[in-house]
Amino acid sequence: MENFIFQNATKIIFGRETELKVGDEIKGHGRKVLLHYGGGSIKKTGLYDKVVNSLKSAGVEFVELGGAVPNPRLGLVNEGIKICRENEIDFILAVGGGSAIDSAKAIAVGVPYNGDVWDFFEGKAEAKEAVPVGVILTIPAAGSEASPNSVITKEEGLLKRGMYSELIRPVFSILNPELTFTLPNYQTACGAADMMAHIMERYFTNVTHADLTDRLCEATLKTIIKNVPIVLNEPDNYDGRAEVLWAGTVAHNGLLGTGRVEDWASHNIEHEISAIYDVAHGAGLAVVFPAWMKYVYKNNLDRFVQFAVRVWNVEMNFEDPERTALEGIEKITEFFRQIGLPVTLKEMDIEDDRFEEMASKATMNDQITLGNFKKLNKEDVYNIYKLG
Amino acid sequence: MENFIFQNATKIIFGRETELKVGDEIKGHGRKVLLHYGGGSIKKTGLYDKVVNSLKSAGVEFVELGGAVPNPRLGLVNEGIKICRENEIDFILAVGGGSAIDSAKAIAVGVPYNGDVWDFFEGKAEAKEAVPVGVILTIPAAGSEASPNSVITKEEGLLKRGMYSELIRPVFSILNPELTFTLPNYQTACGAADMMAHIMERYFTNVTHADLTDRLCEATLKTIIKNVPIVLNEPDNYDGRAEVLWAGTVAHNGLLGTGRVEDWASHNIEHEISAIYDVAHGAGLAVVFPAWMKYVYKNNLDRFVQFAVRVWNVEMNFEDPERTALEGIEKITEFFRQIGLPVTLKEMDIEDDRFEEMASKATMNDQITLGNFKKLNKEDVYNIYKLG
Repeated sequence: MENFIFQNATKIIFGRETELKVGDEIKGHGRKVLLHYGGGSIKKTGLYDKVVNSLKSAGVEFVELGGAVPNPRLGLVNEGIKICRENEIDFILAVGGGSAIDSAKAIAVGVPYNGDVWDFFEGKAEAKEAVPVGVILTIPAAGSEASPNSVITKEEGLLKRGMYSELIRPVFSILNPELTFTLPNYQTACGAADMMAHIMERYFTNVTHADLTDRLCEATLKTIIKNVPIVLNEPDNYDGRAEVLWAGTVAHNGLLGTGRVEDWASHNIEHEISAIYDVAHGAGLAVVFPAWMKYVYKNNLDRFVQFAVRVWNVEMNFEDPERTALEGIEKITEFFRQIGLPVTLKEMDIEDDRFEEMASKATMNDQITLGNFKKLNKEDVYNIYKLG
Repeated sequence: MENFIFQNATKIIFGRETELKVGDEIKGHGRKVLLHYGGGSIKKTGLYDKVVNSLKSAGVEFVELGGAVPNPRLGLVNEGIKICRENEIDFILAVGGGSAIDSAKAIAVGVPYNGDVWDFFEGKAEAKEAVPVGVILTIPAAGSEASPNSVITKEEGLLKRGMYSELIRPVFSILNPELTFTLPNYQTACGAADMMAHIMERYFTNVTHADLTDRLCEATLKTIIKNVPIVLNEPDNYDGRAEVLWAGTVAHNGLLGTGRVEDWASHNIEHEISAIYDVAHGAGLAVVFPAWMKYVYKNNLDRFVQFAVRVWNVEMNFEDPERTALEGIEKITEFFRQIGLPVTLKEMDIEDDRFEEMASKATMNDQITLGNFKKLNKEDVYNIYKLG
């Protein structure tokens, strides 16, 4: 097991009607709020009115900024920064999924910074302060509700980059499974792929003797695998939605990576796809992760055998463990297909004409490698796109 | 799944040599420290010198108070409060196991309180402020290093009572598996029973559809069950010690109880034993928990079947599930025996002459019931002592 530091102070407020308390929850942190959200769905579902009423009855002032889109854009972040400065905003409330949250986090570090917020995403600056962020989560997927990360896409050059700072970890996140009842099945499925990927980026490691986190990863994966088909079939199944929602947070709150060396190659490989083609991140992952697995499994066969046996209940083939490992990879591919996700790039109408460019961007012209389970250079990344 | 709030801000600093940084870690929180510990073991192992050197080189002043004993006493707590007030202490560092930490937490709430600190343990007062507490953990067991709880014994009447406040959750806890190499096997085993009990108090619930936390509980139990025999056999096995140490924290940091109704009858039943006989809490639990299981399993057979199959790999007996459940109870009893713990009260030289008194104290003269899995009155508690 590796040395680690683990701290996650986000207050999770979980359950029915918890969104009604958001105004009171904010009061301890701020007085004037930027209410940040995505498209119109929160207005259609009535969530917008509930939030506004809660803010008003708590005496919290607010200014609005809607329009966060999947793969959220730098342009909107800059607009948010301007609004916050002009209105002396001291708290940002994101209502939505990972896009609204990541956008809110980027605004939060941008407001007090004397420079281009993109500096944080290019690693040119480190955040020293940030406006506190709170969340009402409506899409279980990104795990951004309890993570210190934000991923933003710069329109110019379609660059998708991430930043990390403890300062942007939400101070609270409100998770009400009922708010996820209206999610379209495709979005639920994309979310499942995203959270499974967050776990697998941690699970596939060459660190030995990480029993506890191995088993915690497996526990969380099995919960998702059991409950996603339930909610696709019955969108208002409260308990099923609750399992998926809480699993999505646990998947990415940092616990499952403690003591391990994490990988994250697949996420970076996927980012180049969704930056250019604007496909859902989760759908991209459903293609990239199995392709990555096929490319790297021989690097540490035991780990893939354990994955197959413990997560997918594949019967151990003692005479031919490689067969067991491959069955595990088939199982996850089949699972993604069953929940309605594409499992090849072709199904997303992505041809091979830009693989070279994408592999080059992902590895900064072959100057860096991706991942830790197996270090991947530009050629490896290209080959994985080919397998996708 | 039940509604819940989950927040745990304790910073876990885990790994080799992490105790050397304690002085720097404290600097952000306080300037004058009460260094609180138990007997002489930290002086024998050299840990005391390392801590003192780290404090000195960070320029942190300190005053010492040793003498925390298992089932820590109110007398020492009051002594600590007096020392803190006289010396204007603004940070308490507990070095040791649950006893030193619980004692430190009680001192922490007592210092700013204008009254008897025992009030908090009798539920007569609620803590409004506390001196911040930090921890260097040397015994994986109580989970106090990341919990908001303290359990103290009042000498007069041998009353063992607990308190809860977010204010006493440690701001940081340093966990170095190497510091646990010198633990005697009996203490390691008692710690294992304690942490397993913390998980089982959460696991045995009648709340349905708590898949994620069911599996997280099972994951943590299996990790303990695998690794405790390893470290008993090879006390300086770093990875084995690391698994047990981190599992002990995860067992009791609150995550495993999210969305569930917890039980805690067995802990209360055990407290009456260790208050009177001064046996190790973990040893008492190794007797009480299986006795409790035998007494209550019919109340929710399915749960005990799941426990047997998933935690202990008992083969499901489809024709006679009760047989499967009972095999699970036999398995845990056998495990406790194998790791060197008593599994009957007789083995601890405890006769039945005070069962009546203990059952009466535990239920406040039959005025309250214990537990939630099955509500236990005085007679039930008496019967469980009889089964022990």
